[in-house]
Parts: sequence; structure tokens; C-alpha cells
Amino acid sequence: MNLKNEKNKRGNAEQKIRVIPLGGLEQIGMNITAFEYGDSIVVVDCGLSFPADDMLGIDLVIPDVSYLVANKDRVKAFMITHGHEDHIGALPYVLKEINVPIFATTLTMGIIEHKLKEHEMEDIVTRHTVQFGDLVTIGDFGIEFIKTNHSIVDAAALAIYSPAGVIIHTGDFKVDYTPVFGDAIDLQRFAELGTRGVLALLCDSTNAERAGFTQSERTVGKTFDTIFTEHQNTRIIVATFASNVDRVQQIINAANRFGRKVVVEGRSMVNIIETATELGRLSVPDNTLIDIETLKDYPEEKTVIITTGSQGESMAALSRMAMGQHKKVKIGCNDTIIFSSSPIPGNEKAVTKVINELFHKGADVIFQDAHVSGHACQEEIKLIYTLTQPQYAIPVHGEYKHLKAHAKLAEQIGVPKDNIFILQSGNILELSEDEARIVGNVPVGAILVDGLGVGDVGNVVLRDRQRLAEDGIVVVVAVLDSQANVLINGPDVISRGFVYARESEDILDDAQNIAYESIDKCLMKGISDWGKIKSVMRDDLSDHIWKTMKRRPMILPILIEG
Amino acid sequence: MNLKNEKNKRGNAEQKIRVIPLGGLEQIGMNITAFEYGDSIVVVDCGLSFPADDMLGIDLVIPDVSYLVANKDRVKAFMITHGHEDHIGALPYVLKEINVPIFATTLTMGIIEHKLKEHEMEDIVTRHTVQFGDLVTIGDFGIEFIKTNHSIVDAAALAIYSPAGVIIHTGDFKVDYTPVFGDAIDLQRFAELGTRGVLALLCDSTNAERAGFTQSERTVGKTFDTIFTEHQNTRIIVATFASNVDRVQQIINAANRFGRKVVVEGRSMVNIIETATELGRLSVPDNTLIDIETLKDYPEEKTVIITTGSQGESMAALSRMAMGQHKKVKIGCNDTIIFSSSPIPGNEKAVTKVINELFHKGADVIFQDAHVSGHACQEEIKLIYTLTQPQYAIPVHGEYKHLKAHAKLAEQIGVPKDNIFILQSGNILELSEDEARIVGNVPVGAILVDGLGVGDVGNVVLRDRQRLAEDGIVVVVAVLDSQANVLINGPDVISRGFVYARESEDILDDAQNIAYESIDKCLMKGISDWGKIKSVMRDDLSDHIWKTMKRRPMILPILIEG
Repeated sequence: MNLKNEKNKRGNAEQKIRVIPLGGLEQIGMNITAFEYGDSIVVVDCGLSFPADDMLGIDLVIPDVSYLVANKDRVKAFMITHGHEDHIGALPYVLKEINVPIFATTLTMGIIEHKLKEHEMEDIVTRHTVQFGDLVTIGDFGIEFIKTNHSIVDAAALAIYSPAGVIIHTGDFKVDYTPVFGDAIDLQRFAELGTRGVLALLCDSTNAERAGFTQSERTVGKTFDTIFTEHQNTRIIVATFASNVDRVQQIINAANRFGRKVVVEGRSMVNIIETATELGRLSVPDNTLIDIETLKDYPEEKTVIITTGSQGESMAALSRMAMGQHKKVKIGCNDTIIFSSSPIPGNEKAVTKVINELFHKGADVIFQDAHVSGHACQEEIKLIYTLTQPQYAIPVHGEYKHLKAHAKLAEQIGVPKDNIFILQSGNILELSEDEARIVGNVPVGAILVDGLGVGDVGNVVLRDRQRLAEDGIVVVVAVLDSQANVLINGPDVISRGFVYARESEDILDDAQNIAYESIDKCLMKGISDWGKIKSVMRDDLSDHIWKTMKRRPMILPILIEG
Repeated sequence: MNLKNEKNKRGNAEQKIRVIPLGGLEQIGMNITAFEYGDSIVVVDCGLSFPADDMLGIDLVIPDVSYLVANKDRVKAFMITHGHEDHIGALPYVLKEINVPIFATTLTMGIIEHKLKEHEMEDIVTRHTVQFGDLVTIGDFGIEFIKTNHSIVDAAALAIYSPAGVIIHTGDFKVDYTPVFGDAIDLQRFAELGTRGVLALLCDSTNAERAGFTQSERTVGKTFDTIFTEHQNTRIIVATFASNVDRVQQIINAANRFGRKVVVEGRSMVNIIETATELGRLSVPDNTLIDIETLKDYPEEKTVIITTGSQGESMAALSRMAMGQHKKVKIGCNDTIIFSSSPIPGNEKAVTKVINELFHKGADVIFQDAHVSGHACQEEIKLIYTLTQPQYAIPVHGEYKHLKAHAKLAEQIGVPKDNIFILQSGNILELSEDEARIVGNVPVGAILVDGLGVGDVGNVVLRDRQRLAEDGIVVVVAVLDSQANVLINGPDVISRGFVYARESEDILDDAQNIAYESIDKCLMKGISDWGKIKSVMRDDLSDHIWKTMKRRPMILPILIEG
């Protein structure tokens, strides 16, 4: 079937397609959506999210894909819109459970391959690199990759063809008429699809609260020119997102124009520049890049350092420079540091801390105007609706407030209110030309990754960590003779994270006395159930500490046979 | 001596005054500065700060005032600029160590008195309420309270007179030509002082990065009128800072104009409204306030709820409403919630969480335009410099980046670069007409308050809490016979916050085996030093867990005599 060029009407009303978001609708990140028609399932994106503040010790969060695992035979492929972690980061974990082919554009696939190598999975996963305009037919579906613009090169929207009609998923996008690399978003294709009839549009909501139109990436290039002109006598350090290849390109271009050598610092920055260069997504003029080891051989005002750490991440290169812990780069009054980024919500304090430290070291810091967003603002969202004229609107990518703002826009642009669906992860939305409704739910959830452990840290463990973080732990150990029901030794009291033991002997002595009395009281009453004795110890000590100190450390009584 | 009206030249160059900030320069909050001349010390403000993200379990942070304690006999008084926690919050703690009189304006003193009552200290602290224009002479100093504007009523700048010259401390301020309560800032007095000669200016830096002029508080009143007009058919809930009495006044005024009854919710909001009303700083029309118990007796669209929780604080009234945990107020689609505030850096995510929840419950949420800052922007800061023409500039109140931005402004306005001092807490800045320089340092620091404990949680305890928060704790207990040097019982392994024990028996069994081997190895070697045995257990277990799980729980080996 030639889905791409056929004048396909909206679809057959008796045929139904199901849209099942498995993540991404309760928080930023963890984007993954299943599209299901008949016996075929294709999955769009497979992202991770970063842990919420109360997920202590957790490294990252991945979606529960038990629905896909239960329907393994029907899952045909992963279609990836672009190479950001919130769209690809869960792949190595999920592919271990459902190993199906991955389809993605050039740079996206390059980044995925790097990730698979880190997990030693590159040999067991089938990968297909697609070009914009390609149509992938798989199962009952046809998937077309459509050029968009975003803060990473090679971002794609997807047209998902099925006998029930065409669904467009924009991925993350913006409209950039003058992109740095490659073409502008393929608005004509969106228009063509709209003319033929689009059943539903899943569209990026990230900036749905912002009026207007996101500025072109090229405007940042102009800002760099201005800053480079004004700071010809200092070294320049630019911190930005490693994956923003266009941004890196513009920094390199500015450096080149001003006769500066470029050092790249930070592991993820080095990786991405390597990958992007290999794949022709970044073009570095000869004799521009120098090794950090040779930095000292050049006059400072003839160098630029491109670095990670624009979000204040404590282990990133820029943070280490700011704290004076970086081995190769010492910050001083001959440095101008540009934050080419804006803080992701939650990172504001960390970024400010780094800025303060840089100022303290005498550097000049520029943290405004050298960044544009990668997401569509309200006028761009309206443009996509106007071109595609979808029957149903499904706002995606954003927090609930963004989805609500997006829904308002869709209504303004003429989508009937009943045809706008703010879904929750797990909802099964069944769509046909006649009707759309939520027909059920599949199990979904967030699986926590801590070190090598996937899913072994759950709510009980997190609650314990929160308790431990708040007031520490008091361990009380006693040796009992369970036959004679007598205390042989102890109780000993050891605390961590509670009070500084050396200066708080009285407090710990008191605790020991209380514990002794609790045990004594129990034994005198003839109580031989150790569970009961421990519970009395816990309650008595907890009460005592709350009354005297207004603190609630975790109390851990341990009884052991002598 | 009639300091106020005397044409006092800048001072006697041989006389020196010392400015010693004891807090407030390394972070927002904890403002406290000692001014020292001869045998007299007066202290301006005595604030707390809120714990940094890594101060787990800490409730608040107060300044180390050991310098004041060591010079107790010379400390004459606390002069308080206004009633915010970062200027008064440490008083109950510090007054326990140095009980000297407090001077403050009406509302400021009302709030301080409420605080002292909570600490049962109202009978032991001498208090003097001052009027704007009053001159307090104490020791070698004269202190004049000058009217300013801020996001709390009765804010004052201080003119500090000494034989060495006049120093002006602005406190937190803005310029509001049309304030809601009372007069505009007394710019004429600033000008008069400037004409006679000001030795130094300590000026608010909070908004030193922002161009322009902070809007008048009255503009928020107009916004309320617009919002109330547009939402005549729903209940309106406004969240704001309890202490912003002018804001509360304007909400009450709007409610009154639109014939709505007002409910006040949230403990701090109820307290401040009571205090402000008693002191004539808030005027509530008769029959406007109703008790929350009677809320149900009125049509929803005829009510307004003024509430705490605008910063997303999890225990505040608005958060409890959003989470469906508030006993008296259920949020629904007939609610319009106004955030009359902007998030304090670090609170962005918490605020967004509350907004998302409110949207989820069907409410409409307005979180823009219903707030103005209480701090001077660049043009206001320049105005104060232009009026006062200080010889020396000492930027205060702000993070380092704000102080730097402020210093740039001071330079632009004509203060010589060498006369601008960005101090660190503890610096002793000695000033005379001839010269200013840092002549030494006094001990300063942050004292952590956790429950009833003041200063008993230090770095060791915090590091333990961070470790516990990250990966939990593994406790290993064994009973030994130290005489025979044999293992009698154990080792038993108990973990908290590490893995979910019921589903991870293998992991804990492994740990037990490792611990057993460690002990066995030691005993076989004849090692009888329990410290040594515990250290081997810790290292072995730690290594094993890192290798197999990439986690670093705290390992706590306990040996006990059988």
C-alpha cells in the first residue's frame, strides 16, 4: 500500500486505533506511547525521567512496560523521535525485556548506538536508520518520519498511518525557519496531511503557556558574536547542553571568526561532538579544536572552552571549575563565562551556586540572552493545528498545567472540546472517525533505578530513606537468653545522623537507660515474645526522644541470642 | 547631642567606626550586622535563614554570635529594620545569650512580641517601639528610624550616627510613591543626610540585577479588580505571604467591593492579620471576615479565601487543599486560585506541583501578574545613591552575584571602585573619613536548629544523614566471647533504606555470609581487637555491595559480648 501518496481519507469508521501512553503524562520525561491496531503495536519513544526530590538516592526512573511485555508478540518496533534522554534513555532497560527493532534518524541513532555500547547491547539490537520522508511499513502500520526543528539535530515528527486513519505525533519541536543545520520543519508535509485528513494530533505542550513564537537558534549565534566582540581580552567559557549540536556549532563558528582555539570539556560533550562530527551533523574547521593539555600553550584570550555543567550539576566540568576542583582549568579574573542555557525547573539554586562561585573567583558571568528554547510557543502550536486540522487533539509532553494550557489553545483554534483528550498514563484511548473514548487502562508505573538495581527500591525503602535523612537512626542492641528469658548483655546504643555522639553522651546514656527499662519491664512481666519486646523498646525510646528533643529518628531495636 | 539636626560633617577622621556583618553575606537570610564605636556595639537585625538542600532534617539556621557574647558588656541594643524572618527570626535564640533591649517600629515589634510569646520570653526582654523620625541615643550611637517601603508594613532604614560619621543602612526596601498603608519612603530625609555627608551606605542588593523600577504595590490591587471582575461566578482563593499586610488589605478591599465574604486560613495568616489589625496596620470592614466553619452557608461566588501556601510548602493550607487533605475546603471546578506571589528560588518545583494538583481538581489557576517585588530595582538603588552620596558603598542583602551587580551600579553612579566593599561575614571593616579597610575577622558561622536542639547537629551528623538518605544502612550484629575470642552468635544483618528486605533475601543472605567470613578470617588470625574486626567487616561488605550493586549504604558493624 502506498500510504504516503495515496489520497487516504480519514479512515474507516469501523476500524479503531488505540493510543496508550505508558508514561510522560504525570511528569516531564519518561515519554513512551504505544499505538495499537489489530495485531500490531508500535511504540513511539522510550524515555527516562530524572528522580523527583523525594526519591532519595535514585539515579533514574524508567517506565513500567509490563503491558508491552504481556503483548510481546504484537510489539513490532520502537520509533524514536529524537535523541534526548527523556525519549531514548530507557531503551537499554526496556530492550532487555522486549527486543524489537529500533527506527530513528541519523543523529538520534548515533546517540542510541553509543548508549547501547555502554550497556554492551550493540550486537543484540536491530537498528534501522531512516531518512526524513521515509515510510516504514511494519505490521498494520506505516510510519513516516517528518523533519522538525528542536534543540537537537535530526528531530522528527511521525505520521502514523493505519486503516483507521492517520495520527501525527510531533515529538518535541519548534518551528525554525532558519535552522543552523539542515532544513526548516517540513510544514508543507504537515499541510498535505491536513488536507487529506488527520484523525488525531499528539503535540508538544512544553511551552504552551508561553505566548508568541520561539526565536530561531540563529539568534543565539548573533548573541555570541556580540559577546565575543565585547570580551576580546579574556578567555571565554561557554556552558551548554551537550546534545545541542547546533549550539556547539555556533560557538565553534564564533571562536573561528575571532581566531580562538576551542577546547571541549566534559565527558558527554566530548562524546556527542565525536558522534555528531562522524555523522556529518557538526563541522569543525581544521586546526580549531585543541586538546585541553595544550590549553596553557595559547594566550587565554585566544581560547574558548565549551563545557558541560550549565544546569549546575555538581559533578559536571563547569561546577568543578567553579569549586576550584578542576585539574586543568583554573577560573580567574581573566575569564568570561557564558551560560548558554536556562535552568530546568528545580535546578535554579544549583545554577546560582555555581554563578556565585564563579563571581567569587573574579570571573565575569553572562547568564542571559545566550539561549533560546527548543519547544514551540503558542503561535507555533496554533500553526501546526491550523495546517493539520486534526479531528482529535491529544496534548502531550508537559506537566498537567502545560497540557491544560495546550487544551485551551486547541479549543481556541477550533477543536471541539469533547475531541480534546488530556490523558493519563495507562489510559487506552480508542479512536475512530466516529468516536473517541477511553475504553480502559493498562498497568503503568515508574520503576526506580539505583546503581545496578532496577526496581528493587520501592516505596518502603524510599520512606525509610526519607526518615533516615530527616533525623538519622538509633540502633539499640541487646543480648538475651531466650530460654531463661533474661538479659545477658546490653543494651548498647549506637546512633548515626542523630546527634554528634562525642558531644551528646548524656542523650545516648538516657536512651540506654530507657531501653534498659523497657526490656526489664517486659522481662519482669514474663514477656518472651521478642517482637513485642522490640516494639515496647521502640515506642518508649521514640516517645522519650520526641518529648525531650522534638525529633523522630528511626529506632532500630535488635535482640540477639547470647 | 542633637545629632539629627546638627549640621554634622562627615565625622572626625581620627575616629573610626567598625562594621562587622555576622551573617547574611554568604546566602539569602540570616541578616545581622554589628556597628562598633569605642565601647558601644549596636546590632542591626537578627535574622535566621532556611536550611540549604544538603542540610537534611534541619529546621532553621541561626548566626553564630560568639563575638557578641564575648563582648556582652559593650552590646547596647538590637535595632530591627522590619518584621521578616530573615531579619528577626534568630532573636529568641540570640536573646537567650545576650539579653539587650530591642528597638523597632510598631508592626515589627508586634511580630517580634508574638514570637517572644511563643518562646515564653515576653517578660524578660526589654522592648522599645519607635516612630519614624525618632532618634534613639544609646552608648556612643544615635540611631534614627527612616520610613521606607517594602513587602511588609513599617519597614525602616536606619541612620547610624557616631563621632566617626553617619552610616545609612537601608534594610530591605523599595520606593513606592503610592503605598497602600502609610507614607512613601522618606526620600527627603535621605537627601538631607546626603547633603550633610554620609560616610557609608549599606543598601539592599536583592534586585540589583533587575533593570528599571519596581512597580507600586497598588498595581496588584488593580490586577485583583480585573481578576475579580472576570471571575464573578466562582469562589476565589488567593495565596500570598502572610506578612504582606498591604497585599492582604488589597484582597480584602477587592472582596468588599465585589460583595464577597472573606475567610482567612493558615496559622501564620491568622496570626499576622490579628496582630496587624490590633496595631491599626490593617483595616477590615465590618461583616467582611467570616469563620471558615460558616463558609458553607454562603454561595461560593460570594466568598474569598486568603491562605498561606503560595510557596508550595507541603504543610501549608493551600497545599493541603490541593492534595485533598484540607478538612474545610474542597477544591473543584468552581474555584479560581490566584498565586499572589512569585516562587522563591528553590521552591519552583513545589509550587508547580501544587498548581498541577489544583488544575487536576478542575480549578482555574492564575499565577502571573498578581504580584510585585518588595525590593528596589536598579533605578531605585541608583536613586538612593544619588540622594545620599555616600563616601563608601557596602552592598548587602543578596547572594554574591547580587552584591557584584550592586557594586557595578555603585561604580556607575560615581562611587570610586576602591570605596566599594563586598564584605564576607565576619570581616571587620574599619571606616573613617580618611580611610576604609578590613582590619581583621571575628568568628562567624551557621548554627543549625533541629527540633529543640540548637547546634547539636554539625557536619559529621549531616554527612551521615546524606549517606543514609542516598543508600540507607546495613547493620551487622554479632555476639562474641572476647575471652575465648570466638563467635557465639550471628552475624545478623538488618537493613533500612537499602533494599526491600522481603524481596531481596538473597542480597541479605550474601551480606551475612560475607560478614561471617570477615569475622572468621579475623578470629582465625587471632585478631582480638574489636575495632579491627569491625573495620574488616565494614570494608569487605562495602566492597561486595559496591561491586555487585554499585551502591554505598552505610555499613554499621556492631560486636557485643555474649
